[in-house]
Amino acid sequence: MAVLQVLGISGSLRQASTNTALLNAAEALVRRHDAELTRASIRLPLYDADLADPEALAPVDEFKAALSSADAVLIATPEYNFGPSGVLKNAIDWASRPAYRSVFRDKPVAVIGASGSAVGTARAQGQLKQVLLGMASQVFPYPELVVANAAQRFDGQGKLSDPEVQQRLESFLRDFVAWARRVRVT
Amino acid sequence: MAVLQVLGISGSLRQASTNTALLNAAEALVRRHDAELTRASIRLPLYDADLADPEALAPVDEFKAALSSADAVLIATPEYNFGPSGVLKNAIDWASRPAYRSVFRDKPVAVIGASGSAVGTARAQGQLKQVLLGMASQVFPYPELVVANAAQRFDGQGKLSDPEVQQRLESFLRDFVAWARRVRVT
Repeated sequence: MAVLQVLGISGSLRQASTNTALLNAAEALVRRHDAELTRASIRLPLYDADLADPEALAPVDEFKAALSSADAVLIATPEYNFGPSGVLKNAIDWASRPAYRSVFRDKPVAVIGASGSAVGTARAQGQLKQVLLGMASQVFPYPELVVANAAQRFDGQGKLSDPEVQQRLESFLRDFVAWARRVRVT
Repeated sequence: MAVLQVLGISGSLRQASTNTALLNAAEALVRRHDAELTRASIRLPLYDADLADPEALAPVDEFKAALSSADAVLIATPEYNFGPSGVLKNAIDWASRPAYRSVFRDKPVAVIGASGSAVGTARAQGQLKQVLLGMASQVFPYPELVVANAAQRFDGQGKLSDPEVQQRLESFLRDFVAWARRVRVT
């Protein structure tokens, strides 16, 4: 069985992001299921259909190429004001072109997220799944993985230290990888 | 009666944006109601809580100051992949700090939008209103203004040329200005 190539995207840019930390934990766990998690940077220019400078667009091309070659995508989104981060949505807007024929079309995508609040990005995940369906991605339906009160789930080095969340992440990844193998268009 | 200061925000950066064109139309019409529409730029850096360079943050400070001094806000959003543009959400994310005590708190805000599709940004407006409520803004509830098949509503110079949309925009602005005068916190 070929190794499943999963592209990991953290919706937060800050160094100590718990969403990036959650992807770090996923990177280690996913190997148990013949899958490999690599990362994409979303430090892209602001989306502007007029932008034509090839140098400015180079990181956009790189992001789209990484999505194109991935078998599946795992997005860890923060929740800012009930929605996914604008930074993440901006990257998605770039990758979503041309509409309905983009690199997101038919791509198996899962959404997870961590936040300091009691709802653990549930609202942001809902908005993000709408966006993904708007690009005709295949959205991993179940289970959900919302990590509430995130500050208590990671240690001082940003390592996932909560055994209950570790276990939920482990079974999430097992089911996600199996689903992605089944539904992906080859 | 003092002139109501309305800050207009277009969620699209491209020159020929129909959302910017819609705000241009609003700018002319709103004067009939003792209100004035000025504009804010959302060409801001990507949101990053680690960013501390005062020079990089200057446009963020300017955006927040414009919001702070406005009596009300009118956002024209495009719909990208069923949601508001990432560029717009990114600007909102900056302005939303500190949480629950931001310049958006209690601010009267209305959402309009134009798109080439048949739904005229209805889905993006729904997501954006959730985001605004997440910042404890006061969201203008009714009427809605969705402009579908936008290419047919503006002339070659980007001027709103559809009499039915003009009429809807006119009554929308009348009701919005009256509502904003009533609900704003002074």
